[in-house]
Amino acid sequence: MRRSWVGGANAAETDFPLANLPFGVFSTTAEGPRCGVAIGDHVADLAALAAAGLLPGDCGFDAPALNTFMALGPARWDEVRTRLTALLAEDGDGALRGDAALCGRALVPLAEVAMHLPFRVTGYTDFYAGRQHAFNSGSILRGPDNALTPNWPHMPIAYNGRTSTVVVSGTPVRRPLGQVMGPDGDGPVLSPSRRLDIEVEFGAVVGVPTRMGDTLTVAEAWENIFGFVLLNDWSARDIQRWEGQPLGPFQAKAFATTISPWVVTRAALEPFRTKGWPRDKALLPYLDEPADYFFDLTLETHLCPKGGAATRIVSTNTRHLYYSAPQLLTHHALCGCAMNAGDLLGSGTISGPEKSSFGCLLEQTWGGRDPVPLDGGERLFLEDGDTVTMTGWGQGEDYRIGFGRCDGEILPARPNVGAN
Amino acid sequence: MRRSWVGGANAAETDFPLANLPFGVFSTTAEGPRCGVAIGDHVADLAALAAAGLLPGDCGFDAPALNTFMALGPARWDEVRTRLTALLAEDGDGALRGDAALCGRALVPLAEVAMHLPFRVTGYTDFYAGRQHAFNSGSILRGPDNALTPNWPHMPIAYNGRTSTVVVSGTPVRRPLGQVMGPDGDGPVLSPSRRLDIEVEFGAVVGVPTRMGDTLTVAEAWENIFGFVLLNDWSARDIQRWEGQPLGPFQAKAFATTISPWVVTRAALEPFRTKGWPRDKALLPYLDEPADYFFDLTLETHLCPKGGAATRIVSTNTRHLYYSAPQLLTHHALCGCAMNAGDLLGSGTISGPEKSSFGCLLEQTWGGRDPVPLDGGERLFLEDGDTVTMTGWGQGEDYRIGFGRCDGEILPARPNVGAN
Repeated sequence: MRRSWVGGANAAETDFPLANLPFGVFSTTAEGPRCGVAIGDHVADLAALAAAGLLPGDCGFDAPALNTFMALGPARWDEVRTRLTALLAEDGDGALRGDAALCGRALVPLAEVAMHLPFRVTGYTDFYAGRQHAFNSGSILRGPDNALTPNWPHMPIAYNGRTSTVVVSGTPVRRPLGQVMGPDGDGPVLSPSRRLDIEVEFGAVVGVPTRMGDTLTVAEAWENIFGFVLLNDWSARDIQRWEGQPLGPFQAKAFATTISPWVVTRAALEPFRTKGWPRDKALLPYLDEPADYFFDLTLETHLCPKGGAATRIVSTNTRHLYYSAPQLLTHHALCGCAMNAGDLLGSGTISGPEKSSFGCLLEQTWGGRDPVPLDGGERLFLEDGDTVTMTGWGQGEDYRIGFGRCDGEILPARPNVGAN
Repeated sequence: MRRSWVGGANAAETDFPLANLPFGVFSTTAEGPRCGVAIGDHVADLAALAAAGLLPGDCGFDAPALNTFMALGPARWDEVRTRLTALLAEDGDGALRGDAALCGRALVPLAEVAMHLPFRVTGYTDFYAGRQHAFNSGSILRGPDNALTPNWPHMPIAYNGRTSTVVVSGTPVRRPLGQVMGPDGDGPVLSPSRRLDIEVEFGAVVGVPTRMGDTLTVAEAWENIFGFVLLNDWSARDIQRWEGQPLGPFQAKAFATTISPWVVTRAALEPFRTKGWPRDKALLPYLDEPADYFFDLTLETHLCPKGGAATRIVSTNTRHLYYSAPQLLTHHALCGCAMNAGDLLGSGTISGPEKSSFGCLLEQTWGGRDPVPLDGGERLFLEDGDTVTMTGWGQGEDYRIGFGRCDGEILPARPNVGAN
């Protein structure tokens, strides 16, 4: 692996070696939010590097969001990556390394920064692109014979998610109030959710926009994707059960969706490209894939009760997905739907064949029947004070390409409507 | 009715008398988009009036969107309305009327302006709040015994719509491509939609934002609503049928949603407040309404084939809704979903008891079986070149409060994916 002169960047266990260079938005006590890349145990301040004339053109790195840069497209993304690699590599040029004053300004220890939402989320769409999850959750709700709806093997099924509550890792998540079926089954009651769940997902971030009326091939869609994030699609199963017909999930998913602070680019994930799940049926030609657009990335999730110890509750892999990210984007644009720089496409829950790889508690407990063991306890669903942490990485021979943490703590519900 | 000195404002048939003062965003050949109010056959340029010192405080009227003003809240909205009324009333003050040069700059003939989306749409949620429509469409799909899902009488059902394709009246609508069940029923094909439909809706526009985790009473929600627009939720019924289970509509609704250029305020609609549809069952207390939050507004829809004559195909009324706009907003925020200035809440299709009042072709043709007669033809669903025009108004004794036109022409589908 090519080495960096920045501290921590060559450690085997770091998420952020020179080959990664994920993009995010950070602030310090001295200065407000701006764009940066993670390198070892530091953030390289892209606004400072741009101001020093070390980066090409105007990429909008002094803004508190990556949207401007993301809209510039693959040629510019590659140009910036190449330049950053030269600045940060041991065998690179000395333009940054040789300027101690600039290093002091532009390399900020990760321990001293606060991370923000990396981009303004212009739209959030949540797919259902994992076959094992679709089969498991369909089996729990409708039985194994009707688990997959007839459309499922033919197209990536999705619903529009709620954009206003996509938040960055570390944001607490308040247990939602909602209508749920009452204990006697004779009518709904207003209640805090009692079946609060996670969903382990992989989020694709659209960079290059398309206009209303435009469509995309899968190869074009691949080029338009800027990068990827970890995504926890928090879900209230009791609210979802009662509200979900006929129009799909709404309040059950609208209270929070957490993403990792770092967007890992396609270029960084290139070594981990792989084939996806075998096809049940041939897809229509508009979903044809001229290359392998899936990834071999490990995703782990830990649950830590307040004051307790963390237990790993999920270990899964993004290669368990059935539809690739560019297939999601191609299908999304098929009707002529305009796609914007900042659109977030969740994969849907990623479950593998083993129980330990099931990506949500609904599946792990098989509908709330079989508790998940914890270090010093067990869970059917989340309790107040629980912190859920997702991590993810591609494993190279002597390095990993990671996403940082994607976590959130559950706060107790508000006591009443209107009591803010 | 209080009279205005501006041309056309006192005509019985104008949508825009002094009592209306709807807000929008307009441009001229000489100057880019900025905020205005319609008065008679003119637009009063709010940026120009603010620059002349005739409006209170900084309302952001020089921006190409109303969001800043909408977020300022009811006290400021009322203050601006009172000031505009004084400037434009026959018996008002002379600050504008007496300044010929300012009149020349600040009163622009409607015939000379282009209208834009009135606000940046931060979120679009489409409800299903009309009982007759829910019953009709449920009957067509599932039969009359299972027409309403059990949750329907207890809460406003909704799905998140697609924000990127909410467009202003006059924007052409390209017929979408999509997956539909093939003619033999043995698998899906890629095809332009053959069942392109309208949905006559009423849109509420959120002004005052709420934070993630906050909830709202219905009375609070009412105060947070800035105003209302006409809304046509274009729908592809064949795509919807195939994709709709289990997660609800997605591509079938994502290609376009058209709104009127003018946002009519709560204050302007005050004379038309009324009760809604009788309740099937008592609602949970969080949906209690301390006042009448429905409106008596006529909504008409005309269909005009290319080169042909327009036929009125729908005449309905917003009082046919079952859930009021503040009930929609209260339910939306119930889980702690953050609501933003610029969130658009569609009512869902508004149908009355008579066939002529059914608000979409699916209902009017009862699932595509019984054509709707046109002047010189008939329709099951929309054809290329058809223009659909929605209008709406509250009828006073000698005036009406209207929304202007909400229209769009159907363009032929793209020939292929990737052929832009």
